[in-house]
Amino acid sequence: MDYQAILDDINVQIRPLLGSAGQVASYIPALARVSPFQFGIALRTGDGQEAEAGDSATPFSIQSMSKVFSLTLAMRSLGETLWERVGREPSGSPFNSLVQLETERGIPRNPFINAGAIAVADRLLSLGNAKANLLALLSGLCAEVIHMDSEVAQSEADTGFRNAALANFMKAFGTLDNDVAQVLDVYFNQCAISMSCMQVARAAGYLCRDGAHPHDGSQVVNEAQTRRINALMLTCGTYDAAGEFAFRIGLPCKSGVGGGIVAVVPDTLTLCVWSPALDNTGNSHLGRAALELFVAKTGLSVF
Amino acid sequence: MDYQAILDDINVQIRPLLGSAGQVASYIPALARVSPFQFGIALRTGDGQEAEAGDSATPFSIQSMSKVFSLTLAMRSLGETLWERVGREPSGSPFNSLVQLETERGIPRNPFINAGAIAVADRLLSLGNAKANLLALLSGLCAEVIHMDSEVAQSEADTGFRNAALANFMKAFGTLDNDVAQVLDVYFNQCAISMSCMQVARAAGYLCRDGAHPHDGSQVVNEAQTRRINALMLTCGTYDAAGEFAFRIGLPCKSGVGGGIVAVVPDTLTLCVWSPALDNTGNSHLGRAALELFVAKTGLSVF
Amino acid sequence: MDYQAILDDINVQIRPLLGSAGQVASYIPALARVSPFQFGIALRTGDGQEAEAGDSATPFSIQSMSKVFSLTLAMRSLGETLWERVGREPSGSPFNSLVQLETERGIPRNPFINAGAIAVADRLLSLGNAKANLLALLSGLCAEVIHMDSEVAQSEADTGFRNAALANFMKAFGTLDNDVAQVLDVYFNQCAISMSCMQVARAAGYLCRDGAHPHDGSQVVNEAQTRRINALMLTCGTYDAAGEFAFRIGLPCKSGVGGGIVAVVPDTLTLCVWSPALDNTGNSHLGRAALELFVAKTGLSVF
Amino acid sequence: MDYQAILDDINVQIRPLLGSAGQVASYIPALARVSPFQFGIALRTGDGQEAEAGDSATPFSIQSMSKVFSLTLAMRSLGETLWERVGREPSGSPFNSLVQLETERGIPRNPFINAGAIAVADRLLSLGNAKANLLALLSGLCAEVIHMDSEVAQSEADTGFRNAALANFMKAFGTLDNDVAQVLDVYFNQCAISMSCMQVARAAGYLCRDGAHPHDGSQVVNEAQTRRINALMLTCGTYDAAGEFAFRIGLPCKSGVGGGIVAVVPDTLTLCVWSPALDNTGNSHLGRAALELFVAKTGLSVF
Repeated sequence: MDYQAILDDINVQIRPLLGSAGQVASYIPALARVSPFQFGIALRTGDGQEAEAGDSATPFSIQSMSKVFSLTLAMRSLGETLWERVGREPSGSPFNSLVQLETERGIPRNPFINAGAIAVADRLLSLGNAKANLLALLSGLCAEVIHMDSEVAQSEADTGFRNAALANFMKAFGTLDNDVAQVLDVYFNQCAISMSCMQVARAAGYLCRDGAHPHDGSQVVNEAQTRRINALMLTCGTYDAAGEFAFRIGLPCKSGVGGGIVAVVPDTLTLCVWSPALDNTGNSHLGRAALELFVAKTGLSVF
Repeated sequence: MDYQAILDDINVQIRPLLGSAGQVASYIPALARVSPFQFGIALRTGDGQEAEAGDSATPFSIQSMSKVFSLTLAMRSLGETLWERVGREPSGSPFNSLVQLETERGIPRNPFINAGAIAVADRLLSLGNAKANLLALLSGLCAEVIHMDSEVAQSEADTGFRNAALANFMKAFGTLDNDVAQVLDVYFNQCAISMSCMQVARAAGYLCRDGAHPHDGSQVVNEAQTRRINALMLTCGTYDAAGEFAFRIGLPCKSGVGGGIVAVVPDTLTLCVWSPALDNTGNSHLGRAALELFVAKTGLSVF
Repeated sequence: MDYQAILDDINVQIRPLLGSAGQVASYIPALARVSPFQFGIALRTGDGQEAEAGDSATPFSIQSMSKVFSLTLAMRSLGETLWERVGREPSGSPFNSLVQLETERGIPRNPFINAGAIAVADRLLSLGNAKANLLALLSGLCAEVIHMDSEVAQSEADTGFRNAALANFMKAFGTLDNDVAQVLDVYFNQCAISMSCMQVARAAGYLCRDGAHPHDGSQVVNEAQTRRINALMLTCGTYDAAGEFAFRIGLPCKSGVGGGIVAVVPDTLTLCVWSPALDNTGNSHLGRAALELFVAKTGLSVF
Repeated sequence: MDYQAILDDINVQIRPLLGSAGQVASYIPALARVSPFQFGIALRTGDGQEAEAGDSATPFSIQSMSKVFSLTLAMRSLGETLWERVGREPSGSPFNSLVQLETERGIPRNPFINAGAIAVADRLLSLGNAKANLLALLSGLCAEVIHMDSEVAQSEADTGFRNAALANFMKAFGTLDNDVAQVLDVYFNQCAISMSCMQVARAAGYLCRDGAHPHDGSQVVNEAQTRRINALMLTCGTYDAAGEFAFRIGLPCKSGVGGGIVAVVPDTLTLCVWSPALDNTGNSHLGRAALELFVAKTGLSVF
């Protein structure tokens, strides 16, 4: 398939729509001032072919997309014991809800709601060098140095009261081992990782290769773990719109409030789209539209 | 692929395990007295090849698997307006919970939780001849007369207080148009439909054929609707175990407390397994094991 | 104290306000057509002195005020075992909520929320002659024949889907012993009892006499039970406005959507006010105002 | 009434029961090491008569009893505007639940659940000198210097994750104006106030004097505000046991996990009991028994 032509085509179709709908995340200044008039798309196939279009080289804040990589790191190091601290089922509640956490006594429903990602961050802290290891994983996958944006991380910390509530609540249930402030520091910093579409598509490469590292062929995670991550992305990766994504796009996806969405076509390719304006479910409005176009043009969908 | 050999193989592996774990549903006598020492498996490919093994011709109560067919009928007749009365997202709550219904003012989260299937039954009632139309759909798909087991339906009615609570609650919110007793009559009767594994695999055939009827090639539902149904089955089809099914089996599935599970390999085949003993998530214990074996042997999985 | 003068005074102050605020309950025709331009007030002291003003002799639908009398009957017959089926604490949820019932597995929080009163009705049914016994209790207390308005009861039954949901839900939890339809029949009929302010003030007389019957001096309930009923009225008797009533009026009260409110001044008197237009908490708008005037004029309040 | 004889009598009846039931609060070392073999009782009448028995002069941690005094300070300074940030109705949920706070968007149900007291602490912080003003109020009421136990406050801070969750959650909703850490500092310090039964009975004196200061006769709060506080104590002052307290004791009460309970007989006296072992509702086991004896011996009860 001529992926470059397809991405060019999508870019041509999407660009006129920039600024037409949705709102850039405004809860921190560093995100609020990002121009909505940007759109990027990039993919990498399992055998290393790449294509990109639009603002595919512009770094943006990956935000909740980082949850895929922190989960990967935790699964690789901890295996099944990770699941003593976080579940694997859809939550049915908003991504930052505390209610379910109270009923379920501090065990978040899955690693992609905020509470779950905070629980994963706690596990990474216990393993040591959480932030460095996450950056090392991403840098290795991208074959490029990846960094955290400290201004964004600081802004997240200054306004992240709901995440602080979630972390303290889990600490009260005894399901966080580390100091709340340290756990939140890891979480806010992982959300503040800055990457471009092309970098994200490369970094996620192992998810369409049964877990094999895109460059050295080592297992980032094993095949079953890869399937687990993809299944979690499909069922829980896009907040309250997981059902709509499964239907309209039909691919494992993980979105972030920075406007990025990473998608996996199992055994085929990984794809990242980015456009900062969000729809009312917190997912990139035009990123979503671009993914629908991609699926329509390629016929690639798991259903 | 030699599907017959694969199913025979699975049957040989599963039969020694019959009676070893799980519990037959006991809330009504007609289900409680079913012997757990039964296992059947059957499949039909998109191009009409069939294979079956074990008790694949024994009729059983399809129970919640019927929700796939009632949804199909409602989507075909109502199109998008159906979604004014029922959502399409995972619920995160037990299949018979009333809590979410209160918060969301009588609109069930999806058509596969009980409240959602009751809402669909109400829609079918408004269209007229609900029970007859459902049986006609199934009989046409199977090319055989399918019927409802009136003893089972009566038992369901005698003990279905929680479903009566759900229906009355929706009626109170104004989201059921028809008489509560009539809606429940449709719902209890659809749950009491009796079919064999082979019949179910045939009946579901359109789900692996982009909606095309297995016999006459007409569109049972259109391609987008078919994808929608498959996506709903993957994200919501197996109660609180949807995440586990997505990971371990990786196929759209719908289970019933009669011990059946229907699975779809998009564009390839439909499969039905049956064994009456249930695990603690309400899904067939050995049916689930058989599906895992099938996926392992064939490599067929969407992830 | 010259109670007659006080009630006359209140009547003079309230009458000009009739029709100025609030809404008559409209969920059934028999209540919706009641004129809001009515106000009655009546009291009876522990030693038998009576006073009344306005429409104090006009019968109205006592609705939830009946819960005081059904509770009395159940406590008298069952003693402590009643509390195995219903709690005694404020609910913090709307009077017809199902959520708490799910968490607490079919045991309603107190006898004055709908679920609790339905649980009490089930207990009365098991004791036999529920409706007749309730009318006999009230007729004895009033020294006059009291009856149920069958048109109102039928209307309640025709539209009482939420109450049917509550009853079926409890039946599903195994916390109702009797047939759902029969329990609801008792409940809808007790709500349809028709009494005047003067009759209600007389009927409640034992609540200001440590349980002693106003006419024959026998114990309707014992002293501890009387205190229990008064305490429940103060903490749970006026829906979500119990805190406001406790502060502004400071007396045990029980209201009904027919616009009546019965109040107890322990060891002193019982009082009933009635005016059909309700405020947004479901309590009689002017009834509440009249009670505030009464407390201000007499200084009678438990705080 | 010979109150001294009554208290002596109660002391004689309670002392043999010390150590027989209940558990001392163990979540912080400073509370865990308090001996359960202590019992004190003290009262002060509206006209200044005092009586005391047992360990009535031993200081203990007043914990949640402090919520009465912080509320008093906030009501006095803020009047009706206080109620924009905290409700006045029973909660029906555990004292430290976050669920209701999510539904009600950061406005706690009443000032006696933890979230409500934290909201009040935020208001006091905005008024300036929160801790000093609270100590000044108490010292004036007791005519003795009252202080906060800094070891207890530090322990509360070290383990108060659930309270930190509540405060951060409210901050996320925008219903706390001040820095979370500062608000919690006020809250943890007010809980760590150390007083004896006699001191508490004196400090609460205005609650049985229509708000009049026990020494100088000035209005600590006005008469309506006093009634409001008493009503809140009766409906919400003893966690999930408010209904039982209303029935068995029938007086406005506020308890603390230090084992103290302060009670008000409106227009008559204030009373404080203390015994560290708690029952399963978090209220002092023998304190509660002592209050029941007091009510039985004196006949003082609002019902």
